[in-house]
Amino acid sequence: MPALRHPVKINVDLGEGYGNFKCGPDDELIPLIDHANIACGFHAGDPLIMQQTVRSCKAHNIAIGAHPGLPDIQGFGRREIKMSPEELTAMVTYQVGALRGFLEAEGVPLNHVKPHGVLYGMMYRDKEICRAVYAGVPKGVPVFGLAGTYHEEVAKELGLPFVAELYGDVKYNPDKTLVIDRKKKYGLLIFCPVDGCDADFVARAWTAEETKKHIRSQVETSSVTAVNGENVELPIGDHQVSLCCHSDSPGAVEIVTAARAIVDEFNKKHFS
Amino acid sequence: MPALRHPVKINVDLGEGYGNFKCGPDDELIPLIDHANIACGFHAGDPLIMQQTVRSCKAHNIAIGAHPGLPDIQGFGRREIKMSPEELTAMVTYQVGALRGFLEAEGVPLNHVKPHGVLYGMMYRDKEICRAVYAGVPKGVPVFGLAGTYHEEVAKELGLPFVAELYGDVKYNPDKTLVIDRKKKYGLLIFCPVDGCDADFVARAWTAEETKKHIRSQVETSSVTAVNGENVELPIGDHQVSLCCHSDSPGAVEIVTAARAIVDEFNKKHFS
Amino acid sequence: MPALRHPVKINVDLGEGYGNFKCGPDDELIPLIDHANIACGFHAGDPLIMQQTVRSCKAHNIAIGAHPGLPDIQGFGRREIKMSPEELTAMVTYQVGALRGFLEAEGVPLNHVKPHGVLYGMMYRDKEICRAVYAGVPKGVPVFGLAGTYHEEVAKELGLPFVAELYGDVKYNPDKTLVIDRKKKYGLLIFCPVDGCDADFVARAWTAEETKKHIRSQVETSSVTAVNGENVELPIGDHQVSLCCHSDSPGAVEIVTAARAIVDEFNKKHFS
Amino acid sequence: MPALRHPVKINVDLGEGYGNFKCGPDDELIPLIDHANIACGFHAGDPLIMQQTVRSCKAHNIAIGAHPGLPDIQGFGRREIKMSPEELTAMVTYQVGALRGFLEAEGVPLNHVKPHGVLYGMMYRDKEICRAVYAGVPKGVPVFGLAGTYHEEVAKELGLPFVAELYGDVKYNPDKTLVIDRKKKYGLLIFCPVDGCDADFVARAWTAEETKKHIRSQVETSSVTAVNGENVELPIGDHQVSLCCHSDSPGAVEIVTAARAIVDEFNKKHFS
Repeated sequence: MPALRHPVKINVDLGEGYGNFKCGPDDELIPLIDHANIACGFHAGDPLIMQQTVRSCKAHNIAIGAHPGLPDIQGFGRREIKMSPEELTAMVTYQVGALRGFLEAEGVPLNHVKPHGVLYGMMYRDKEICRAVYAGVPKGVPVFGLAGTYHEEVAKELGLPFVAELYGDVKYNPDKTLVIDRKKKYGLLIFCPVDGCDADFVARAWTAEETKKHIRSQVETSSVTAVNGENVELPIGDHQVSLCCHSDSPGAVEIVTAARAIVDEFNKKHFS
Repeated sequence: MPALRHPVKINVDLGEGYGNFKCGPDDELIPLIDHANIACGFHAGDPLIMQQTVRSCKAHNIAIGAHPGLPDIQGFGRREIKMSPEELTAMVTYQVGALRGFLEAEGVPLNHVKPHGVLYGMMYRDKEICRAVYAGVPKGVPVFGLAGTYHEEVAKELGLPFVAELYGDVKYNPDKTLVIDRKKKYGLLIFCPVDGCDADFVARAWTAEETKKHIRSQVETSSVTAVNGENVELPIGDHQVSLCCHSDSPGAVEIVTAARAIVDEFNKKHFS
Repeated sequence: MPALRHPVKINVDLGEGYGNFKCGPDDELIPLIDHANIACGFHAGDPLIMQQTVRSCKAHNIAIGAHPGLPDIQGFGRREIKMSPEELTAMVTYQVGALRGFLEAEGVPLNHVKPHGVLYGMMYRDKEICRAVYAGVPKGVPVFGLAGTYHEEVAKELGLPFVAELYGDVKYNPDKTLVIDRKKKYGLLIFCPVDGCDADFVARAWTAEETKKHIRSQVETSSVTAVNGENVELPIGDHQVSLCCHSDSPGAVEIVTAARAIVDEFNKKHFS
Repeated sequence: MPALRHPVKINVDLGEGYGNFKCGPDDELIPLIDHANIACGFHAGDPLIMQQTVRSCKAHNIAIGAHPGLPDIQGFGRREIKMSPEELTAMVTYQVGALRGFLEAEGVPLNHVKPHGVLYGMMYRDKEICRAVYAGVPKGVPVFGLAGTYHEEVAKELGLPFVAELYGDVKYNPDKTLVIDRKKKYGLLIFCPVDGCDADFVARAWTAEETKKHIRSQVETSSVTAVNGENVELPIGDHQVSLCCHSDSPGAVEIVTAARAIVDEFNKKHFS
């Protein structure tokens, strides 16, 4: 029996353009994935892009989640902003509500909520922030997050279903958190660490082989090599699992295609 | 039997501050009105203000509508922006959805949709714009607008219930449209005409007595003196009726208090 | 003696990304051009992008102009907004001043001002708008615009030096104005006409040969084939001339490379 | 001889409205002060307000400084945003340049630069941030800041003239820094402490007498009672001095009027 107790799904952040600015190759990615996290206009996305992305996902029968972020298009939701808990809650209610407007117009349900970018990281580092964000999630709607962090703990506290995420194109710190920064830098969406890490290690571009190894070890053994070279166990437990990839990673289509193959093989072997 | 076939209600635009900036005396107005049109963050309002305004309205049992506007905080939704029909529809879906997020969190239904500012005027002057905006209104939700204009015609076409508005603090053009501009100017929220009018007439500040007369003639006779001095009949027909006042008019509380008294007297006389 | 009395220069709009969003291949274009029009943060561009673009242009010894636009990142400055003349003037003063901040930090002079997108079109269609925009241009700084329109007339009225533009990747209406819309559509930056035109003609993608012909006829004969097939004379007169290409046109590098060759040949033949 | 070696001036943040939103009673304050810090459009202010504020200050012969803030109208520049040093520098260059556009149009020099709100606090707590902000100040332009903090140290390091500030309507922490938060709360612009303080003490509204005492002790003895009741010495040394008051404090006109009287008396006694 594998370390992961459920078939692995794949989620990607979509609709992250703005006006005339395009972000990722959404049209090519949608057919490859299970879950879409759609940007809600605060860190990226605008009403027209949201509407079109919802329609594309519906056409491919992809489950749709809200992807709320900090109010900062210029920083793409990757610059920390100190907001009050009340502001965070209201900001999430607003963004999720806006997406639901499009979902209701298309007769599609809201599948989940996954906070974006640095907000996601602020939540696993600060319990109050995590509570404030989840307080804006409609009752009973699942949240996607990092197992073993406040993401999981607060979801349980508030009675929100929790889906554990793996990361196909982001490296891990030894403490099992993510190495996150503002811009895709090195071929993969490799993020600089918030609290320092081996920059040389991070800077070295991954080959396609390394990416596949990174994904395969998470899927097959629920563990991963952190940026310091250490092997760390991911505390997924009994949760549902979704592997996240980013549409703004260079090579996104290649990465997601590889992930799809690995995940399908794993799911077929253990859950069919 | 009066010209108006239904009791008259009062609606006011609320939640039109932004961040630290306050707009009208919302707390004093809410107890005086029946319908709140809550700004949705595009021309004014932010998530926290929306949340708090929804809660205040709920506490006073006021029916809540969405008040979507053009994306222009700086211009307060009173500068025309040429958007495509698709953009207009998506923009309305987004804003109405965002407000519904707060309504659902509070367990309160969406009562109506009333577009804001120059968008409202663009709609009664351009049928395609009117259609595009109403296409973003959820099915079956009533819209507030000007009887005898595209507001009414397109609502009928799309099967949206229509509520006819009177205007307590805005003057009328002889063609029964409103005299709208960007900023409260003369003591009352007197707007400059879009297409020219007697500026001296408009500029002259109304006394409280004139305001009451303006409201009373609309309520009791369904007619009003236009900015050129002409008396015009308002084609309200058999519609539900709501009298609009603005929270950013100087003297807003005084105006709404007077309106309340006139409306209550009218309703009592004819509908109790 | 050629119809054009001065050597032809080439200008391109640069720095039109925003935050993480990239727009054109600026690095490849800069070595090919004479004049850069740098976006100033209202329709595109942000402070960091402006700083970096100024530095790149300085490194290649390119003359730098300000490229102010309407306040609308989402619409890329290509949606008309009705602003008051006072707002237009202040908005231009602000944007030009902001760019000069970077120029002064680098010890580089401001070469010219060229308004962006739909604002450029609004100016040649409405004299008051043109005056309001030019009123924000610092005294004595040249403006780039369309000869034979209010651009030229108002520049003369206000004593601003005028540089006449040709357009390498935009088609002309028979009245010698440009066919402008919001998004690059057909391989070239072919804009939909403001006032209607032969859509089929516009829609047909140009081949590289057609582009070269379009540029060559303007440079060599000061005339061009309009979207209705008619040949129109451009009233360049005795003005300095700069040919504009867009960094967000598909094939921008190819177009500018071709333009460079045609212009160099022309300049060498007549002005060396 | 007094602790302060120079006549005391008064500075106020002005032009902090946005679009239709008004902030302080600028027209009443301008005749009472020496230095205006004009908001530059990022935390408040817009081009039209900047233009008008520059003109009003010029008409009253007030020295004008730039008041750059974080890019956050909604948070009024009082929410921390983690920006890179390069972004901070570019953001300051941009805002100062924009203001200079209006100053040059009016033929008035730039007198100083004073960063706004939480940015001001971030700078005295983090030397790298302070350096990044000052790197965007044009060479030789004086900066206003808190003596004895990085404000002073970095100004010296970069060769920028330094003017020491006193605070008429903000309380001090025992470490001589300011008690700063997002919104005027208690009658005076009393800010909540960044790092915790005696909330009850802060919450207690000051009487006019207490305000005068707060100002008088700073002006006459270069010391002040901190929020914990302790008397602290302000390390003003030999610097030029300007006392800051806020236009968005309740009672702003009263406070500045009182400050003017105290300062005038002090200046007359010691420097005439």
